[in-house]
Amino acid sequence: MDYIEMIGFIAAFLTTAAFLPQVYKTWKTKDVSALSLPMLLMFLVGIILWLVYALYIPSPSMIVTNTITIVSAFFLIYFKIKYGKT
Amino acid sequence: MDYIEMIGFIAAFLTTAAFLPQVYKTWKTKDVSALSLPMLLMFLVGIILWLVYALYIPSPSMIVTNTITIVSAFFLIYFKIKYGKT
Repeated sequence: MDYIEMIGFIAAFLTTAAFLPQVYKTWKTKDVSALSLPMLLMFLVGIILWLVYALYIPSPSMIVTNTITIVSAFFLIYFKIKYGKT
Repeated sequence: MDYIEMIGFIAAFLTTAAFLPQVYKTWKTKDVSALSLPMLLMFLVGIILWLVYALYIPSPSMIVTNTITIVSAFFLIYFKIKYGKT
Protein backbone atom coordinates (compact mmCIF):
# COMPACT_ATOMS: atom_id res chain seq x y z
CA MET A 1 0.00 0.00 0.00
CA ASP A 2 1.43 3.39 -0.94
CA TYR A 3 1.67 6.44 1.30
CA ILE A 4 -1.28 8.31 -0.16
CA GLU A 5 -3.59 5.32 0.36
CA MET A 6 -2.39 5.15 3.97
CA ILE A 7 -3.33 8.82 4.40
CA GLY A 8 -6.71 7.99 2.86
CA PHE A 9 -7.26 5.17 5.34
CA ILE A 10 -6.29 7.35 8.32
CA ALA A 11 -8.71 10.00 6.98
CA ALA A 12 -11.38 7.33 6.54
CA PHE A 13 -10.85 6.09 10.09
CA LEU A 14 -11.04 9.59 11.61
CA THR A 15 -14.10 10.82 9.74
CA THR A 16 -15.97 7.53 10.19
CA ALA A 17 -15.03 7.37 13.89
CA ALA A 18 -16.40 10.90 14.32
CA PHE A 19 -19.65 10.02 12.53
CA LEU A 20 -20.57 6.61 13.98
CA PRO A 21 -21.14 7.82 17.59
CA GLN A 22 -23.81 10.17 16.21
CA VAL A 23 -25.55 7.22 14.59
CA TYR A 24 -25.26 5.24 17.82
CA LYS A 25 -26.61 8.18 19.82
CA THR A 26 -29.60 8.47 17.49
CA TRP A 27 -30.25 4.77 17.93
CA LYS A 28 -30.03 4.99 21.75
CA THR A 29 -32.01 8.19 22.25
CA LYS A 30 -34.42 7.60 19.36
CA ASP A 31 -34.29 11.38 18.97
CA VAL A 32 -34.58 11.96 15.23
CA SER A 33 -36.09 15.43 15.49
CA ALA A 34 -32.88 17.07 14.25
CA LEU A 35 -32.86 14.90 11.13
CA SER A 36 -34.95 15.66 8.08
CA LEU A 37 -35.89 12.88 5.70
CA PRO A 38 -35.29 14.83 2.46
CA MET A 39 -31.84 15.76 3.77
CA LEU A 40 -31.04 12.17 4.70
CA LEU A 41 -32.13 10.95 1.26
CA MET A 42 -30.05 13.67 -0.40
CA PHE A 43 -27.10 12.63 1.73
CA LEU A 44 -27.62 8.95 0.83
CA VAL A 45 -27.72 9.65 -2.92
CA GLY A 46 -24.62 11.83 -2.54
CA ILE A 47 -22.69 9.09 -0.74
CA ILE A 48 -23.76 6.49 -3.34
CA LEU A 49 -22.37 8.79 -6.04
CA TRP A 50 -19.12 9.18 -4.06
CA LEU A 51 -18.93 5.38 -4.01
CA VAL A 52 -19.36 5.27 -7.80
CA TYR A 53 -16.61 7.90 -8.03
CA ALA A 54 -14.34 5.92 -5.68
CA LEU A 55 -14.87 2.70 -7.64
CA TYR A 56 -13.90 4.51 -10.82
CA ILE A 57 -10.67 6.13 -9.52
CA PRO A 58 -10.25 3.46 -7.92
CA SER A 59 -9.71 4.55 -4.34
CA PRO A 60 -9.75 1.72 -1.75
CA SER A 61 -9.95 4.07 1.25
CA MET A 62 -12.89 5.99 -0.24
CA ILE A 63 -14.66 2.74 -1.15
CA VAL A 64 -14.39 1.51 2.46
CA THR A 65 -15.46 4.77 4.07
CA ASN A 66 -18.37 5.38 1.70
CA THR A 67 -19.65 1.83 2.12
CA ILE A 68 -19.68 2.26 5.91
CA THR A 69 -21.38 5.64 5.55
CA ILE A 70 -24.05 4.23 3.21
CA VAL A 71 -24.92 1.58 5.81
CA SER A 72 -25.02 4.31 8.52
CA ALA A 73 -27.25 6.51 6.37
CA PHE A 74 -29.65 3.59 5.84
CA PHE A 75 -29.86 3.15 9.62
CA LEU A 76 -30.56 6.87 10.12
CA ILE A 77 -33.29 6.80 7.47
CA TYR A 78 -34.78 3.71 9.12
CA PHE A 79 -34.70 5.42 12.55
CA LYS A 80 -36.27 8.55 11.08
CA ILE A 81 -39.13 6.59 9.51
CA LYS A 82 -39.60 4.37 12.58
CA TYR A 83 -39.30 7.00 15.35
CA GLY A 84 -40.16 10.14 13.43
CA LYS A 85 -43.91 9.55 13.70
CA THR A 86 -44.11 9.95 17.46
CA MET B 1 -14.71 17.86 -17.54
CA ASP B 2 -15.16 14.12 -17.81
CA TYR B 3 -18.16 12.11 -16.69
CA ILE B 4 -16.63 10.79 -13.49
CA GLU B 5 -15.69 14.30 -12.31
CA MET B 6 -19.28 15.38 -13.00
CA ILE B 7 -20.50 12.53 -10.79
CA GLY B 8 -18.02 13.70 -8.16
CA PHE B 9 -19.39 17.23 -8.30
CA ILE B 10 -23.00 16.06 -8.04
CA ALA B 11 -21.94 13.92 -5.06
CA ALA B 12 -20.12 16.93 -3.59
CA PHE B 13 -23.19 19.12 -4.03
CA LEU B 14 -25.56 16.60 -2.44
CA THR B 15 -23.43 15.71 0.58
CA THR B 16 -22.47 19.34 1.23
CA ALA B 17 -26.08 20.52 0.79
CA ALA B 18 -27.15 17.91 3.35
CA PHE B 19 -24.46 19.00 5.81
CA LEU B 20 -24.61 22.81 5.66
CA PRO B 21 -28.16 23.16 7.09
CA GLN B 22 -26.93 21.36 10.20
CA VAL B 23 -24.15 23.91 10.57
CA TYR B 24 -26.64 26.72 10.03
CA LYS B 25 -29.03 25.20 12.57
CA THR B 26 -26.24 24.98 15.15
CA TRP B 27 -25.43 28.62 14.50
CA LYS B 28 -29.08 29.71 14.88
CA THR B 29 -29.99 27.59 17.89
CA LYS B 30 -26.56 27.79 19.55
CA ASP B 31 -27.31 24.24 20.69
CA VAL B 32 -23.94 22.50 20.68
CA SER B 33 -24.82 19.92 23.32
CA ALA B 34 -24.91 17.12 20.75
CA LEU B 35 -21.39 17.96 19.57
CA SER B 36 -18.29 16.80 21.39
CA LEU B 37 -15.04 18.73 20.96
CA PRO B 38 -12.74 15.68 20.67
CA MET B 39 -15.05 14.31 17.97
CA LEU B 40 -15.07 17.62 16.08
CA LEU B 41 -11.27 17.81 16.22
CA MET B 42 -11.00 14.20 15.02
CA PHE B 43 -13.39 15.03 12.19
CA LEU B 44 -11.37 18.15 11.28
CA VAL B 45 -8.08 16.24 11.13
CA GLY B 46 -9.80 13.53 9.06
CA ILE B 47 -11.14 16.06 6.56
CA ILE B 48 -7.74 17.77 6.29
CA LEU B 49 -6.21 14.37 5.46
CA TRP B 50 -8.95 13.79 2.85
CA LEU B 51 -7.97 17.13 1.33
CA VAL B 52 -4.30 16.03 1.19
CA TYR B 53 -5.51 12.82 -0.46
CA ALA B 54 -7.67 14.75 -2.94
CA LEU B 55 -4.80 17.09 -3.85
CA TYR B 56 -2.60 14.07 -4.54
CA ILE B 57 -5.05 12.16 -6.79
CA PRO B 58 -5.86 14.97 -7.90
CA SER B 59 -9.63 15.10 -7.54
CA PRO B 60 -11.21 18.54 -8.17
CA SER B 61 -14.62 17.55 -6.75
CA MET B 62 -13.08 16.17 -3.55
CA ILE B 63 -10.88 19.26 -3.18
CA VAL B 64 -13.94 21.54 -3.37
CA THR B 65 -16.12 19.50 -1.02
CA ASN B 66 -13.38 18.97 1.57
CA THR B 67 -12.45 22.64 1.58
CA ILE B 68 -16.08 23.60 2.27
CA THR B 69 -16.30 20.94 4.97
CA ILE B 70 -13.08 22.15 6.64
CA VAL B 71 -14.55 25.67 6.86
CA SER B 72 -17.80 24.22 8.27
CA ALA B 73 -15.90 22.14 10.82
CA PHE B 74 -14.00 25.25 11.93
CA PHE B 75 -17.34 27.02 12.49
CA LEU B 76 -18.71 24.09 14.50
CA ILE B 77 -15.57 24.02 16.66
CA TYR B 78 -15.87 27.77 17.18
CA PHE B 79 -19.56 27.41 18.15
CA LYS B 80 -18.71 24.57 20.52
CA ILE B 81 -16.00 26.60 22.26
CA LYS B 82 -18.12 29.77 22.34
CA TYR B 83 -21.51 28.32 23.33
CA GLY B 84 -20.42 25.06 24.98
CA LYS B 85 -19.63 26.77 28.29
CA THR B 86 -23.19 27.80 29.10
